[in-house]
Amino acid sequence: MTLRETMRQLASRAKESARELGRLSREEKDACLRAMAEALDASRDLIARANAEDMAGAAESGISAAMLDRLRLDDRRIDAMIRGLRDVAGLPDPVGRVLDDRVRPNGLRLRKVAVPIGVIVIIYESRPNVTVDSAGLCFKSGNATILRGGKEARRSSQALVEALVEAGRRTNARFPAHAIQRVETTDRDAIRDLLACTESVDLCIPRGGEGLIRAVSECSRVPVIKHYKGVCHVYVDGEADPAMASEIVLNAKVQRPGVCNAMETLLVDAAIAPAFLPDMARKLAEKSVELRVDDRAAGLLPPDLPRVKPASEEDWHAEYLDLILAVRVVDGVEEAIRHIHRYGSAHSDAIVTRNEDRARQFLAEVDSAAVYWNASTRFTDGGEFGLGAEIGISTDKVGARGPMGLEELTTYKWIGLGTGQVRK
Amino acid sequence: MTLRETMRQLASRAKESARELGRLSREEKDACLRAMAEALDASRDLIARANAEDMAGAAESGISAAMLDRLRLDDRRIDAMIRGLRDVAGLPDPVGRVLDDRVRPNGLRLRKVAVPIGVIVIIYESRPNVTVDSAGLCFKSGNATILRGGKEARRSSQALVEALVEAGRRTNARFPAHAIQRVETTDRDAIRDLLACTESVDLCIPRGGEGLIRAVSECSRVPVIKHYKGVCHVYVDGEADPAMASEIVLNAKVQRPGVCNAMETLLVDAAIAPAFLPDMARKLAEKSVELRVDDRAAGLLPPDLPRVKPASEEDWHAEYLDLILAVRVVDGVEEAIRHIHRYGSAHSDAIVTRNEDRARQFLAEVDSAAVYWNASTRFTDGGEFGLGAEIGISTDKVGARGPMGLEELTTYKWIGLGTGQVRK
Repeated sequence: MTLRETMRQLASRAKESARELGRLSREEKDACLRAMAEALDASRDLIARANAEDMAGAAESGISAAMLDRLRLDDRRIDAMIRGLRDVAGLPDPVGRVLDDRVRPNGLRLRKVAVPIGVIVIIYESRPNVTVDSAGLCFKSGNATILRGGKEARRSSQALVEALVEAGRRTNARFPAHAIQRVETTDRDAIRDLLACTESVDLCIPRGGEGLIRAVSECSRVPVIKHYKGVCHVYVDGEADPAMASEIVLNAKVQRPGVCNAMETLLVDAAIAPAFLPDMARKLAEKSVELRVDDRAAGLLPPDLPRVKPASEEDWHAEYLDLILAVRVVDGVEEAIRHIHRYGSAHSDAIVTRNEDRARQFLAEVDSAAVYWNASTRFTDGGEFGLGAEIGISTDKVGARGPMGLEELTTYKWIGLGTGQVRK
Repeated sequence: MTLRETMRQLASRAKESARELGRLSREEKDACLRAMAEALDASRDLIARANAEDMAGAAESGISAAMLDRLRLDDRRIDAMIRGLRDVAGLPDPVGRVLDDRVRPNGLRLRKVAVPIGVIVIIYESRPNVTVDSAGLCFKSGNATILRGGKEARRSSQALVEALVEAGRRTNARFPAHAIQRVETTDRDAIRDLLACTESVDLCIPRGGEGLIRAVSECSRVPVIKHYKGVCHVYVDGEADPAMASEIVLNAKVQRPGVCNAMETLLVDAAIAPAFLPDMARKLAEKSVELRVDDRAAGLLPPDLPRVKPASEEDWHAEYLDLILAVRVVDGVEEAIRHIHRYGSAHSDAIVTRNEDRARQFLAEVDSAAVYWNASTRFTDGGEFGLGAEIGISTDKVGARGPMGLEELTTYKWIGLGTGQVRK
């Protein structure tokens, strides 16, 4: 079989299994998920061995320490995967929700009902836990999954998928044989061939760095929901409560700098900058944050402050994911909004102000998945939103936007219940 | 400017205008729409002249009579466009609907609010009325539109767009200058260049034949919502009420055969076929319907029936849009569902039966935008669903599915209202 034929077979088997999956009740799905959690627990040795081989291979090929760390599966990370599956089992079934219910004048009853999307391809890098998290969320929402992880994690992923599938089969004879599949080949062309299967694949969700997401989007013939970078802003307005602004800025930058909802650029209204910025900069310096500042901000900072550099154009675009912060002084909310439109990534942006009109303008005009008034950007997260587990945070506008949980992994169909109605 | 630069400018102007559009209230938008309707009425002569030139050019180039007819703008069609704009003005504003509203344990209030998608490109063929219908729906839903119609209709489209934009400007000084734009060049590469503007264009909706939609989907880098063909089925189950089944079959085939929600294949349960099919075939023959039948159906039909041909494999895939019907005898609901999965286009499919279990199975397992129990497939339509005007019927699953009206032209954002909350 050629690569293309192999991918087509994988996709069409997934389609078939997606249909079978639709016949499982919530209870049946949850029982499978709980059995999968137990299977991971029981397979720790097997998983650890596979992971050790992956780690050894990766170390030999000379990948970075950060990538090695992402690849590592220790007991704590296995525990987190197990907990994740159990949490998903406990969440409500997103399938079958009635989104609309109307009776037309001719008596035809129309119900809009949430249904699974069908076949979802997940493409990711070296973190093996994405395998389990994605498979669990897709399974619960009634979707068949095709997983394509980084080649350095292939043995770990294989061990994990085998444990999940075996547990599903053991628990329920109707567990669809191809509900959760892995792309086994490490051939890079496999992605292109798989994402050309428009007949069978309904959606692709790439999870990882910008390069991966861009490459997938460019080659895909099926819809892609992108989880791009988070160039998140906090705008401290002239009428901000300085203490509140300071807490929000610190939280958004340093509480967990390596994630997509962390702030990357601080915008400060010129009206408050002389009073606010020196003290704020000192607090950030205490947390070892490096500042990349525009000329106006530079003029306000104490000369003895460590780690201050002039910002270049690239800094406004940068997703540092690190203890680095771009800082710019702007003339009010209009300029802040213009800056965010020009440089932002439509992820999460916040305004701190006591002025309701300016807040309303910011919330209305900043075109991002999540916009905050007097709160940290760090809240953009399925768990924090109370949506349960999430498969990622979409920076797209079509399909799902913001935290993408179980409900966002469904679509809908219209069901017409008639008594012989025909159209006049 | 190169073509690519021209397209990029068009797109980025649209983006800017989309932001300005968001500042108009419902009343302001509706006033513009009503003024647009009046402007069309006042510009009948201008429009007729432009259309006559298009018609003359098209006739010279030797296009088909059917295409010439689609190109024609007579008073009746102009009336329909005017009525369309007024109807849209009367519909509720889809923007600003609160889709979710929750207060988290930390006091952070999260609201999920419907917002415009942004910039929508509409690509269509020769029917000039698509220009006005699309522009009106997109404007009402707060989206900037870039219209790319067929080159044979370019003078008509230009006259229409000019009338709409002038009316908008006259009515409201804040009417965004580039809320409604046309791609002026007829260069085919313009589509590819425009749909490469991922920074500015949020969505593309191609409207037209399968070839157009496929070409657009293949070249686009921005999300596309497809309105593919409708290979719709009616399955007459063994426990159908024959009189009801007969009425539904006739309606689905002959009431308006040239539209996407008309039935193209009739599936008849073997258990009822001998009793049902001969009479049904005669009724269809009376309406001049040509039948393309499988062997089992052929064996049941009276030999004197006119216009009966054996079906080939292509017939099961065919969207005739004509008085032609493929007919197949199947062994029960399972085989009907398998046939629909294999050959259908996920548009609209119906079962006629008194057996609730079989109906439930059909409704659950047929993976189409609209599924009916004891009703005609012809109901899949924004107006019939009570959704108001529609821009088309999506056969996609991501973004919008089925009739795509004003609400389906919006996305959402999350608005977080805090009092200084930070993440622990």
